[in-house]
Amino acid sequence: MIAATLDRIKAELGPDGWSEDADRIAPRLIEWRGRWRGRTPLLALPRSTAEVAAVVRLCAEAGVAVTPQGGNTGLVGGQIPDGEVLLSLERMRAVREVSPLDDVLVAEAGCTLAAVHEAAAAHGRRFPLSLASQGTATVGGLVSTNAGGTQVLRYGTMREQVLGLEAVLPNGEVWNGLKRLRKDNTGYDLKQLLIGAEGTLGVVTAASLRLQPILPSRAVAVCGLSSAHDAVALLALAKAESGGAVEAFELMGRLGVALALRNVGGREPLADPHPWYVLIETAAGEPGGAEAALERTLAAAFERGLIADAVLAQTEAQAAALWAVRENQSAGQKPEGAAWKHDVSVPVSRIADFIVRATEAVERFRPGVRVVAFGHVGDGNVHFDVLRPDGGDDDRHHADRDEGARIVHDLAAGLDGSISAEHGLGTMKSAEALRYKSPAEVAALRAVRQALDPGRIMNPRVLF
Amino acid sequence: MIAATLDRIKAELGPDGWSEDADRIAPRLIEWRGRWRGRTPLLALPRSTAEVAAVVRLCAEAGVAVTPQGGNTGLVGGQIPDGEVLLSLERMRAVREVSPLDDVLVAEAGCTLAAVHEAAAAHGRRFPLSLASQGTATVGGLVSTNAGGTQVLRYGTMREQVLGLEAVLPNGEVWNGLKRLRKDNTGYDLKQLLIGAEGTLGVVTAASLRLQPILPSRAVAVCGLSSAHDAVALLALAKAESGGAVEAFELMGRLGVALALRNVGGREPLADPHPWYVLIETAAGEPGGAEAALERTLAAAFERGLIADAVLAQTEAQAAALWAVRENQSAGQKPEGAAWKHDVSVPVSRIADFIVRATEAVERFRPGVRVVAFGHVGDGNVHFDVLRPDGGDDDRHHADRDEGARIVHDLAAGLDGSISAEHGLGTMKSAEALRYKSPAEVAALRAVRQALDPGRIMNPRVLF
Repeated sequence: MIAATLDRIKAELGPDGWSEDADRIAPRLIEWRGRWRGRTPLLALPRSTAEVAAVVRLCAEAGVAVTPQGGNTGLVGGQIPDGEVLLSLERMRAVREVSPLDDVLVAEAGCTLAAVHEAAAAHGRRFPLSLASQGTATVGGLVSTNAGGTQVLRYGTMREQVLGLEAVLPNGEVWNGLKRLRKDNTGYDLKQLLIGAEGTLGVVTAASLRLQPILPSRAVAVCGLSSAHDAVALLALAKAESGGAVEAFELMGRLGVALALRNVGGREPLADPHPWYVLIETAAGEPGGAEAALERTLAAAFERGLIADAVLAQTEAQAAALWAVRENQSAGQKPEGAAWKHDVSVPVSRIADFIVRATEAVERFRPGVRVVAFGHVGDGNVHFDVLRPDGGDDDRHHADRDEGARIVHDLAAGLDGSISAEHGLGTMKSAEALRYKSPAEVAALRAVRQALDPGRIMNPRVLF
Repeated sequence: MIAATLDRIKAELGPDGWSEDADRIAPRLIEWRGRWRGRTPLLALPRSTAEVAAVVRLCAEAGVAVTPQGGNTGLVGGQIPDGEVLLSLERMRAVREVSPLDDVLVAEAGCTLAAVHEAAAAHGRRFPLSLASQGTATVGGLVSTNAGGTQVLRYGTMREQVLGLEAVLPNGEVWNGLKRLRKDNTGYDLKQLLIGAEGTLGVVTAASLRLQPILPSRAVAVCGLSSAHDAVALLALAKAESGGAVEAFELMGRLGVALALRNVGGREPLADPHPWYVLIETAAGEPGGAEAALERTLAAAFERGLIADAVLAQTEAQAAALWAVRENQSAGQKPEGAAWKHDVSVPVSRIADFIVRATEAVERFRPGVRVVAFGHVGDGNVHFDVLRPDGGDDDRHHADRDEGARIVHDLAAGLDGSISAEHGLGTMKSAEALRYKSPAEVAALRAVRQALDPGRIMNPRVLF
């Protein structure tokens, strides 16, 4: 049955539209940190929406499962097949259209985020979503995981950038929802279901994305703070003083900064070390507006005693150096050995409480562990990483990971938070997420899935 | 069967929790323009989410249909029962919480939009969604119709203001999704289905709403233009020059301006009449930033020959007078007799094409009709109103309404637009919307509804 379906798929895609070559398939079966290794009977490489539809239709008819894959940068295993047909969107990478008058760009699922940035810039516009993996991450994956990044505070997650979608539904039918309307109230908004569905409700093949003006005025500062609670107060101050000009508000603890400098490089952002750091970036349309907004914010913050020191970048190179400290928070941990990584969110007002309580809890659980907490405070999103004790044993620390995660996730959930702020659930967290959702919600979500994919062929091991 | 269910509902709600008094019910059965008159066996007046759940559960068990109602300001009949139990949320009007640190306000479904504005302002924040009916329209209805208004260009529709929802699902279960997270990627986002569902997937009982900073700098101008196409070019210029500071960009034709002045009052905005007018409002955090942005925009527009004249309000009273001309576009039509009203959207780049073509088409269909086109050009949203010929017959014009709507809607759909930009479908447009949706999409939407409301008890005559 499966063999016959695979043969039909091969016939449909033609000789160079698929692969069974183990070497060619191998890199697509390994998550980039090596935590998941998968297997697949067939790599399907469709070149068009019609070919994607043909593959899904054949699979639906035969009850053969499919895992869609974009740039394979996901962190929770959702893109790694375990016996499913692997449907790669890598050949569908066209930017179909850029319309500056509509502030819209239409890109196919396999188009990288970097290519979207370039195409927008070539038309004097900006696509305001940025990620560390933007050279590899693709539009289909960004939509299917509702990707976040460092500019969510001002522009929202991927969900808010999507004006329309084209997708192949689990029955193999093509839905052309590539509208570019700001307002369209004509029934349930089907694209909202596909965004963040991690490939379980269909295959996203293209998206209409919303563009923004390029803001000519931009300013970056790093502040030193004595507590994470002061960071929450500083955020409220920055939002009020800047009148909405804050683009990024990123918290870093001293240990994360020290490890980034020691293990990756760079200079201390401030003369003396501080327990906490906040990087603020503002952007404005008015010439000089971003600097003025940031200066007003810093002056008010000094006056209220919220910050002990601050540096405002005077050149683009200085701004880049300040950002590098933030961007190296993950790389700086690598040489330190095993780590438990968590991507949680809580209400903004509780972010400091969360960090304090979670740090106490994991230190109580395994004395000596080292917490590197950093993240997008403006979104309530903390990357709460727990390194093994200095000189400790990696395997021992790995073995404690699930128990550690339970402690951290219970604390986040207890503060009305989420156990996955921006990474999704994948195969890593789907079962665990059930602990934190009400039976009423899970039943509703399962009913929706069953309605759209009665044969459960789309990424069946992911979500509920 | 129905009588027994009604008795159970009455018992559950207690003596003052329901009404069968025809006089009390009457105003809730008439849409405010008198276009729909409904009937109901019972007005249910629950005071709490638990009471809403009890009513829905009893109805679900017996297969009795329910129509939820908020402020009864809808324009497409979705809130008017035709034999269903009428579930009014009018007693659930508490603002449960305002958290300035989280920029969140939690309001119950029956809370008016004006009350939300007041509660936000009392905490130094702004809720950036405004409507003509804001003294009456309620949170539950705003969510269920994904309301729009004049600030969508900058802040989005109601969908983008909702961080969390509490709702009673069609089986009578309460879903507490009142989170206030900016990022939460843990499965399908159930609230996105309820937003804009017009009461067909459950009853929204409360919402966590996102607040914005109050922008101290604000400026308003009205420009005179020779064509609607110049308005599209002016919008792109305004967005670029202001760096995202545009809050409103409203187009008005000469006839609408003339009727507003003649039938409601006020002064000509500019010395000479112009075929088209655009009202622009900017807002910024920097003192003087909004004026500077608007002045830059107007200077560039004059230079490119996009505008013939412009006035920049020097006082709040002048700004209010300019806005009054826009706000009186509907009231100004009233004394002119019967009108076909359409609420369409098209891609921003096509809005002028749409207005030109639709005007030609309706004038060809019924010579002498008078077009008043106005709206939120920044959102691609046009209120395209067609008045009967001067001195013509109201009944004759009413009789042609459906045929006229077909012409207008076919043109909007042909330009990849929507036949309902912000009003929803209700009982008025649900059947017509089917003409413009693909069978694949309709099948998916129906499957979702069937999955969540197998007995089709929630507002059964609305949507698909």
